[in-house]
Amino acid sequence: MKVDVHFTRAEVDAAALGESTVVVIDVLRATTTIVEALANGAVGVYPTSSAADAAQLAASLGREDALLCGERKGVKVDGFDLGNSPAEFTAEVVDGKKLVMSTTNGTRAFSAALEACRVLVCAFTNLGAVAAAVSADETLVVLCAGQGDRFSIDDALCAGHLVRRVVETGTNTFELNDAARAARALAEELNPDRAFLEDISAGRALAEIGLAGDFEICGEVDRHDIVPMMHNQAITLAGA
Amino acid sequence: MKVDVHFTRAEVDAAALGESTVVVIDVLRATTTIVEALANGAVGVYPTSSAADAAQLAASLGREDALLCGERKGVKVDGFDLGNSPAEFTAEVVDGKKLVMSTTNGTRAFSAALEACRVLVCAFTNLGAVAAAVSADETLVVLCAGQGDRFSIDDALCAGHLVRRVVETGTNTFELNDAARAARALAEELNPDRAFLEDISAGRALAEIGLAGDFEICGEVDRHDIVPMMHNQAITLAGA
Repeated sequence: MKVDVHFTRAEVDAAALGESTVVVIDVLRATTTIVEALANGAVGVYPTSSAADAAQLAASLGREDALLCGERKGVKVDGFDLGNSPAEFTAEVVDGKKLVMSTTNGTRAFSAALEACRVLVCAFTNLGAVAAAVSADETLVVLCAGQGDRFSIDDALCAGHLVRRVVETGTNTFELNDAARAARALAEELNPDRAFLEDISAGRALAEIGLAGDFEICGEVDRHDIVPMMHNQAITLAGA
Repeated sequence: MKVDVHFTRAEVDAAALGESTVVVIDVLRATTTIVEALANGAVGVYPTSSAADAAQLAASLGREDALLCGERKGVKVDGFDLGNSPAEFTAEVVDGKKLVMSTTNGTRAFSAALEACRVLVCAFTNLGAVAAAVSADETLVVLCAGQGDRFSIDDALCAGHLVRRVVETGTNTFELNDAARAARALAEELNPDRAFLEDISAGRALAEIGLAGDFEICGEVDRHDIVPMMHNQAITLAGA
């Protein structure tokens, strides 16, 4: 099994993804929020690049069934129903709804993965489920959303814990690229506890706008046993 | 002290480097080779982006005092005097010479650092000397050359060992960016021994073209107690 981790979107050769399963990670907070929403009964999540695209898509999906979600600079977009805090996406709020979502880094990462044959959504909260879902793949590409175009350690650490799980439970031989090796080594040293999350770049930015409460869900490993999958630009539960 | 590591050139905001000391790292092999050349008596190293620029600069420096060095795809450029293997740069060959050098990733990294007030050259071979030289800085930027525009674990590991030395010997408080934290964690797990170097992306590429002998010098921590510094596009020994 070939395992390539990419720490930024710029490092991905999108045209070469055809045969690969791509796992997209944005721990703080887009992929954590998507996992939470689908675990709580949302029927689908539709990532869009801009807030304007999101509003247009919500209208076309039927505004009464859709919720507009997302942030800019961490804060809920004006006029949207929800921001990007996983705790907002309770069953009471999202069950049966279609969520149109626009976030700064996360939804852009999905657009980098569009050429892949299978695109899965990963956070710490569904790490084990994703590891199991990719175990039989020949080529796994893990795409960290990063911050802007820069390395983000929370995404890299999640990638590393995923690589560890895949390698430790696998019976294949594994060929890791440099970033996969580095991520795995990182996972030997670090865990996504509160002290870690509040002291990293994206975590400090969240705490500054009063969203440190998000660390609780974002750092909870294996909170859900589900694998969201993107198909035709909609993210739904695999097998659903 | 603010310590920012960047794993690829694309992540550097070149225009913001003005007040910083920038440390450039390309373990396999440009910065290892530059350290070796200056330790063995070369009077200066002149990085150039293209082989054509290199030939032109060598002519203007006086061809009898200059050596043309560098590689493309790891192999010595046709018509050049030397390739990019540190072991080629012995005192017998380089003492008193000006070296015009063009390599795939290393010399490009120097061009990303041109706006900085101080640019130092680092490899495992002069790690301690560089750590000591930056210990009083307010802002340290560590620029990993990477492979093409991608993460390279040898450069990241060297950056991590540098960060460890700086933090462990320093009396300052330190503010590390995400990549500096990750590099430091990597350095807790890994060392640049032969087993590591021959199993990583750049190392496998070198071994395939018969240059595995380079690992010996490239992985030797603190082989030299010198700090090469770039000024006006020439690299010489700091204080020389």
